[in-house]
Amino acid sequence: MTDAPMLAFDADDTLWHNESFFALTEEAFGQLLAPYADPEALKERLTQTERRNLGVFGYGVKGYTLSMIETAIEVTEGAVPASVLQALLDLGKEMMAHPVTLLDGVGDVLEDLARHYPLMLITKGDLFHQEDKVARSGLADLFSAVEIVSEKDVPTYARVFGRHGVAPDRLAMIGNSLKSDVLPILEVGGWGVHIPYHLTWAHEAAPEPLGHPRYVRLADIRDVPDWVGAQFPL
Amino acid sequence: MTDAPMLAFDADDTLWHNESFFALTEEAFGQLLAPYADPEALKERLTQTERRNLGVFGYGVKGYTLSMIETAIEVTEGAVPASVLQALLDLGKEMMAHPVTLLDGVGDVLEDLARHYPLMLITKGDLFHQEDKVARSGLADLFSAVEIVSEKDVPTYARVFGRHGVAPDRLAMIGNSLKSDVLPILEVGGWGVHIPYHLTWAHEAAPEPLGHPRYVRLADIRDVPDWVGAQFPL
Repeated sequence: MTDAPMLAFDADDTLWHNESFFALTEEAFGQLLAPYADPEALKERLTQTERRNLGVFGYGVKGYTLSMIETAIEVTEGAVPASVLQALLDLGKEMMAHPVTLLDGVGDVLEDLARHYPLMLITKGDLFHQEDKVARSGLADLFSAVEIVSEKDVPTYARVFGRHGVAPDRLAMIGNSLKSDVLPILEVGGWGVHIPYHLTWAHEAAPEPLGHPRYVRLADIRDVPDWVGAQFPL
Repeated sequence: MTDAPMLAFDADDTLWHNESFFALTEEAFGQLLAPYADPEALKERLTQTERRNLGVFGYGVKGYTLSMIETAIEVTEGAVPASVLQALLDLGKEMMAHPVTLLDGVGDVLEDLARHYPLMLITKGDLFHQEDKVARSGLADLFSAVEIVSEKDVPTYARVFGRHGVAPDRLAMIGNSLKSDVLPILEVGGWGVHIPYHLTWAHEAAPEPLGHPRYVRLADIRDVPDWVGAQFPL
């Protein structure tokens, strides 16, 4: 155990845009299937398929692409043309290869913080895709550790922080998901810093832990240095 | 750095069967597409699609399933019925959920070795699926470290072994793939112990490093304890 503070960041929708690409893909999915199904009903069916398949495929674009194909076959009762399914495959490939677009201020804030604190990146999902995004983000050198995990829950955080020898109350996790970045961190004894993104994946919805002594809500990543400076003075 | 030896094991086709499930799936794929394409030509097309998609999807069942669907659409020029594509999705899900079947002798050998040496498991592929297989194998408690990586190459091994403070010449990597488990290990200075599996994925084919002073070929995992005992006496 060390007394040095550690700042851990989520990646998708905290450092770079992610959910907005899913939203664009979902829109394209709706347009491709428009001759066969009402867009709202279709969206609901896709969410159901995704949820059902999460336990089989885990998080990430590849499982999402398989769920789009499955939903397209189901809602059309098999009438969907192969050309549409090929278009869904292509949408999946585009998501995998999509440029990494940082949120405003991320580069400056991380460079500033990295001069004074060890930074960790903790992201869940597809190992191959997340490693690729970290590499393409240009931020990799600012992190002393990058952890890609299959689920962000209490046992995972306890294992990761245990391995790095961080005392829970000297640790802040900064992210956009109450469910994945804040609630389990509060449970292991750390600080949960929530910075909402304008879109939230239905699966990540969770109640805000208002009144919790280690829960912090900031409007923007550019507010992090001031909070960190006050909480963990140099 | 420590002088203690470390034994690192590959997982797929070293500890449990894997390629044989891919072979069964490929056979089912051939049967489903038999009305549309010659089985041998189909196999060749699937291998081509897989190779082309590896850089987009990485290793693992989900990418393989997407490649099966893409190949089916391509070889039939879009004439493949949706019911066949649904059957391919189902094959992918079956592979994800398939029981983990250990190779003969694996349990006894690892229990024996774990009493005297730290064991590490290093496997490449899909994080979610590999973690799930490790958990279902019943072997997790025998390993002091489990590393799931996106590629098994020299930089990856150097990083993993560096993190664990292992001196390369005190390290043996035991696995079925010359390309992934043996050649890069020899390059980082460790012992590469090859135990062939009866099937080798085309992508993993590589020349045998005959005559290399740290290359070892064993017929069966049950031969590992004797070799380890001679190489790293207690």
